[in-house]
Amino acid sequence: MNPEPFLQLDRVIHEKGRLAIVSLLAASARLAFTEIRDTLDMTDGNVMAHLRTLHEAGYVAATKSFEEGRAQTTYALTATGRKAFTAYIDLLEQIVRQTKEK
Amino acid sequence: MNPEPFLQLDRVIHEKGRLAIVSLLAASARLAFTEIRDTLDMTDGNVMAHLRTLHEAGYVAATKSFEEGRAQTTYALTATGRKAFTAYIDLLEQIVRQTKEK
Repeated sequence: MNPEPFLQLDRVIHEKGRLAIVSLLAASARLAFTEIRDTLDMTDGNVMAHLRTLHEAGYVAATKSFEEGRAQTTYALTATGRKAFTAYIDLLEQIVRQTKEK
Repeated sequence: MNPEPFLQLDRVIHEKGRLAIVSLLAASARLAFTEIRDTLDMTDGNVMAHLRTLHEAGYVAATKSFEEGRAQTTYALTATGRKAFTAYIDLLEQIVRQTKEK
């Protein structure tokens, strides 16, 4: 077994809650907090903590806008986040492939 | 995005150190502690903690044997562990596939 793909897995993305959030954001332009929370059936606290970690890693950016007089914050992957996610998915693919070959 | 595969990921296997250990055991009949540690370049403490968690989940069994008068403990996946790992890899494959389809 080649241990490299395992060692390289990005811990920021690998945590399953964050993996779900990053996958969701990768499939969308940008999303509101409530859209993330409701799609993934997570608590406010969970989504908030994961978004903070992703923000600190430079993977997710928040944008504040005003619509019909109400402030709304939306979240999107940064270019860095998208690149890290692509690399992560490539590693998962290697792990799946090397397992199925056995 | 379908959030199901993310929600179903088995936390016992998902942690990247344990994922490496389980993948290694899945590719072998049984392995000594030092073989696991050296192949994955982990510390004794790390391997020990992960094996304990895997044992508590019923995924890994330890066998003590005597070879040339020396006690040796080897580790192997149980049938439950192998089943859980197969289910986990199937979920990873779904996650990869649904990402690549985008």
